[in-house]
Amino acid sequence: MSKTRVHDSFARQSLMTTFGAELQAVEPGRVTISAPIGDHLRQQHGFAHAGVTFALGDSAAGYSALSLLPEDREVVTSEMKIHLLAPAVGTRLVARGRVVKPGKRLVIVMADVYALDEDGAETHVALLTGTMVPVPSG
Amino acid sequence: MSKTRVHDSFARQSLMTTFGAELQAVEPGRVTISAPIGDHLRQQHGFAHAGVTFALGDSAAGYSALSLLPEDREVVTSEMKIHLLAPAVGTRLVARGRVVKPGKRLVIVMADVYALDEDGAETHVALLTGTMVPVPSG
Amino acid sequence: MSKTRVHDSFARQSLMTTFGAELQAVEPGRVTISAPIGDHLRQQHGFAHAGVTFALGDSAAGYSALSLLPEDREVVTSEMKIHLLAPAVGTRLVARGRVVKPGKRLVIVMADVYALDEDGAETHVALLTGTMVPVPSG
Amino acid sequence: MSKTRVHDSFARQSLMTTFGAELQAVEPGRVTISAPIGDHLRQQHGFAHAGVTFALGDSAAGYSALSLLPEDREVVTSEMKIHLLAPAVGTRLVARGRVVKPGKRLVIVMADVYALDEDGAETHVALLTGTMVPVPSG
Repeated sequence: MSKTRVHDSFARQSLMTTFGAELQAVEPGRVTISAPIGDHLRQQHGFAHAGVTFALGDSAAGYSALSLLPEDREVVTSEMKIHLLAPAVGTRLVARGRVVKPGKRLVIVMADVYALDEDGAETHVALLTGTMVPVPSG
Repeated sequence: MSKTRVHDSFARQSLMTTFGAELQAVEPGRVTISAPIGDHLRQQHGFAHAGVTFALGDSAAGYSALSLLPEDREVVTSEMKIHLLAPAVGTRLVARGRVVKPGKRLVIVMADVYALDEDGAETHVALLTGTMVPVPSG
Repeated sequence: MSKTRVHDSFARQSLMTTFGAELQAVEPGRVTISAPIGDHLRQQHGFAHAGVTFALGDSAAGYSALSLLPEDREVVTSEMKIHLLAPAVGTRLVARGRVVKPGKRLVIVMADVYALDEDGAETHVALLTGTMVPVPSG
Repeated sequence: MSKTRVHDSFARQSLMTTFGAELQAVEPGRVTISAPIGDHLRQQHGFAHAGVTFALGDSAAGYSALSLLPEDREVVTSEMKIHLLAPAVGTRLVARGRVVKPGKRLVIVMADVYALDEDGAETHVALLTGTMVPVPSG
């Protein structure tokens, strides 16, 4: 695995910059991404928008797949399902992605997303399962 | 249906403002949302990020459900699956949501998302299916 | 397309025989399968079991993908989501599958399943979306 | 929880009898169902049909939800997604369902399905996530 590759790809995603997101941890098959719940990322009640929760979970899942692939491969999301378990209330979202089943043609992934309050207490707000497809890079 | 309610709720979603998104059409059971593919909304190859495609599709689907509900109800997404069919290349995304099966307790919804190039030609980039839950408003 | 191939594969699925299912129509990208709601295929209220509805929808979707592939390929289901829209009450189930997006590596498919009553009136009981993977044939 | 209720409901599902399935374990929020991979339950290569894997996983997930509900409630599946991770080769399938998030209106559930060979070695063949809806019983 090349942590550098994951960091390089992440840095090129302007949406992650727009969200103020950062890569918190990159291990083989496991990636954590977090972002503050900024005032510009909310739905009508002031909670984090489901689109933000999805984007963080999908990215954490996708990079967990990428972390297991050879240097000449990257991944695209083919499909992803998200269950929204609780309102994303708090100061920060943390998305933890992992590989369920690696493969050359398809990588099955999961992610859990948590909302953190000011004291760091976590609420499980989303569960994602999906399919990543390795493609030639560049 | 109250078009005003849909517009009011949409206007309170700061993420939609961050995306530059607008409500294009609101009919009973059908809502269209579009947004330019801004430089701040991209993945590592410069295409629209899957999180943006998801957010627009989910919102179009959710508001299509809201458009059929009584005044004292709003909706939250319970779960949503997205199939990403093609890279979101172009200048603009258009998300068309619709109700598959209305209900008091659950509303089953779909959305299709298209990328538009400079000439207005559409590419089908995503298909979403999901479950909206009516909840008491405000 | 080879209709023969679809029929041959279908005939080898012993579960379809157990269900009394038959191929009703095979066109390029579209396949219809139907089965009586037998007394041995029910859930606790006497309706068709969700597993039967799923199996028919998944098979109709999978064979719609197979109908577009070259002779040396067959398909396996990678993932499938089913929305159960109404109780499967009636005398017969009809599943209509179709290809949403063909591809060499992945085929995105849908299916709708209907319950028919004695007069032939249809109720839409399920909506499926999924991913088929072409693999070398046996 | 009433184990009796889960057993009574299971016994009324004729499809489970057709599959030769049995309830192996019923605990609060966790249910295990297993079935032999009978000759009448196969797809074209002689593996267990995806419809059988789905039916067992869906039932294990649904009964895990039922195990947490009051006596006057039962559950219906609203939607379920299955990832098929490996061919269901072996002599027996074991489906382990569990509740991810309980609720009065919706219960979010998961299930894992394993294929057992003659020596009892397990292969993870499917992962399911879904939504169960409590409804008044009887």
